[in-house]
Amino acid sequence: MTAALPDTQQGMRRRNLARVLHTVAAHGPLSRAAVAARIGLTRAAVSTLVDELIRAGFLDELGPERPGRVGRPGSALAVSARGPAGLGAEIGVDHLSVCAVDLSGTVRARVVRPVDNRERAAKPVLAELAALVDEVRVAAEALGLRPTGLAVAVPGLVERDRPFVVRAPNLGWTDTDLGPLLPGGLPVTVDNEANFGALAELWTGGGAHENFVHVSAAIGIGAAVVLGGELLRGTRGFAGELGHVPVRPEGPSCPCGGRGCLEQYAGQEAVWRAAGLAPGQEPVGLLAQRAAEGDKAVLKALRGAGSALGIALSGAVNLLDPEGVVLGGSLSPLAEWLLPPLRRELTRRTATANRPVTVSRLGREGPLLGAAHSVVRAVLDDPVSLTAE
Amino acid sequence: MTAALPDTQQGMRRRNLARVLHTVAAHGPLSRAAVAARIGLTRAAVSTLVDELIRAGFLDELGPERPGRVGRPGSALAVSARGPAGLGAEIGVDHLSVCAVDLSGTVRARVVRPVDNRERAAKPVLAELAALVDEVRVAAEALGLRPTGLAVAVPGLVERDRPFVVRAPNLGWTDTDLGPLLPGGLPVTVDNEANFGALAELWTGGGAHENFVHVSAAIGIGAAVVLGGELLRGTRGFAGELGHVPVRPEGPSCPCGGRGCLEQYAGQEAVWRAAGLAPGQEPVGLLAQRAAEGDKAVLKALRGAGSALGIALSGAVNLLDPEGVVLGGSLSPLAEWLLPPLRRELTRRTATANRPVTVSRLGREGPLLGAAHSVVRAVLDDPVSLTAE
Repeated sequence: MTAALPDTQQGMRRRNLARVLHTVAAHGPLSRAAVAARIGLTRAAVSTLVDELIRAGFLDELGPERPGRVGRPGSALAVSARGPAGLGAEIGVDHLSVCAVDLSGTVRARVVRPVDNRERAAKPVLAELAALVDEVRVAAEALGLRPTGLAVAVPGLVERDRPFVVRAPNLGWTDTDLGPLLPGGLPVTVDNEANFGALAELWTGGGAHENFVHVSAAIGIGAAVVLGGELLRGTRGFAGELGHVPVRPEGPSCPCGGRGCLEQYAGQEAVWRAAGLAPGQEPVGLLAQRAAEGDKAVLKALRGAGSALGIALSGAVNLLDPEGVVLGGSLSPLAEWLLPPLRRELTRRTATANRPVTVSRLGREGPLLGAAHSVVRAVLDDPVSLTAE
Repeated sequence: MTAALPDTQQGMRRRNLARVLHTVAAHGPLSRAAVAARIGLTRAAVSTLVDELIRAGFLDELGPERPGRVGRPGSALAVSARGPAGLGAEIGVDHLSVCAVDLSGTVRARVVRPVDNRERAAKPVLAELAALVDEVRVAAEALGLRPTGLAVAVPGLVERDRPFVVRAPNLGWTDTDLGPLLPGGLPVTVDNEANFGALAELWTGGGAHENFVHVSAAIGIGAAVVLGGELLRGTRGFAGELGHVPVRPEGPSCPCGGRGCLEQYAGQEAVWRAAGLAPGQEPVGLLAQRAAEGDKAVLKALRGAGSALGIALSGAVNLLDPEGVVLGGSLSPLAEWLLPPLRRELTRRTATANRPVTVSRLGREGPLLGAAHSVVRAVLDDPVSLTAE
């Protein structure tokens, strides 16, 4: 949105306010002089911008920096712990969760309710979610925070504009209009859990990556591509469909119409079947336990899945030349067994060696955190959008 | 480069100069008022910027617009036909070519010399190229143009910074430092021919595509990915390696170390071999002729190549969700036979139907035009870089 503003004085001021706020959020506490040095503006210009951000409640002045530093002490700035906040929610197959994140990215309130959402209608699920959102919102307001929006992560293909769930096979939802069911009173956005998971990795994963492929798994294979610090959405919003990259073009038929898609080798159902288990009955944790106990069928199934992931990711790496690949979501507990065959294929099939494949530290929390952070990022990107106008 | 400028008055002026120049180059002739309407600045602000661009020789005033329009006639502006120009060059396997393009994108001078460069040392090739560059430069200057830079398209893997050819199998060059061999007197850039081909398609192809996969072929498979109107280069500059996307993971060994890479099915050598021809002996035109005559072995080889291209591109489309796929370079004369099997695979294996696969209108000229245009784009992106400073 900021980028679309015409290049005028007013647009420049908005962008510079965002730049100051981002800098303090990422590196604060910082003095005005330190902010000025980081963003290449004069200290006078920065002071004017800072005063405006303090008045609007985005920044706090912490008082003089502690002595012992060279030069006249400046007053340290930090993002307000009582300022705007983002609410994130996740509709999981086996849980609902909601959290509130402040401008510094700290989780300030959080509830998780274990609940089996398989084949449950959207209406009661979203009613239950709305109650949890209220709970977290009240808790956040009690801390002096002002929630400015809500973002909801859904395990399925989502049309974000409407918002509309095209297909969420884990939940059994197809063509479901979420609009009338979402909590009111706040701007709400909806996105796929794999997208929010990748954004969480980008914003809070701690790695220096701005270019990576993030692979998670709900029921199929959730994946997302981050390039130049931006989520690749694609022309129709369908980018990141790693699950339907062909692994063996004459392989088993896939519901998508193709054959031998990655999902037929590394999707949850395929892995469960290959391990001789009834699909969906065994949570990921139990699968990991059986693998740790040396169950041969489970180990073989995971080897096959890891190697198929490696073949599909070789294609992605050859096309995108990313800094690395990150395994997240419900795949992370299985990483110990998936990674060796995955790395073997990637090393054989891609030109440059040592392409790091890492496991996300966020694990299953990624989508929830990504959702809440997306609300906060919108504030940091254009703080003026929240003020007087 | 412009993007890295701090957001100051001076930076804003530079960006607005670029915006005015781009607008007139793309849509001119235009009056000052029309430019102002298109970029969202006031007419007064635009007039100041226009005057500066006229003084520096980037824009020409064509005199009053012809009558018949409503309102007071404004003076129409066009990019100067005697202003800065870009020189492009291509080192082909069977030719050397050089051209000069003016700010409007029109080719103003051009030479092509057929010459067999296979296994010829870099030094004499570049000496011959330098003579052609001089010839075109003199011709451009005689037209009143001022060449501001030279860009050279090379059929191989290039490190652009040094500049250095890592591997150009068609020419037989490996680890070749082009620095001392390139023509002097002008800033020179070097890039892979597949990249310049894709950029030409983006800038001059006439399609509305800003997101596409461009597939050409020199000896292997040259490809490039354009996203959001920008060439995807990747972390190490190796993005777009479609030729090493796995098609059949247990297929024939590839020199890259992998197995069953696309290049083993659709690369020139593989197609020639499958058609029962001696590799490299039959130019693409002859192959097309044999296919047109109904040669069964050639038709079968092209079917196999098209279908392998379709499988690899299905992976790319699932990952990137582009607007379309463009077949260019030396593949274009074979499109008639490659497209049906290619489209069949793509339709089966990708979620959204009607993903257009088109054939570039630029054909084999793409890399040369892309190179010359890249010089002109740099001028349009930051005209100030050429003036007084």
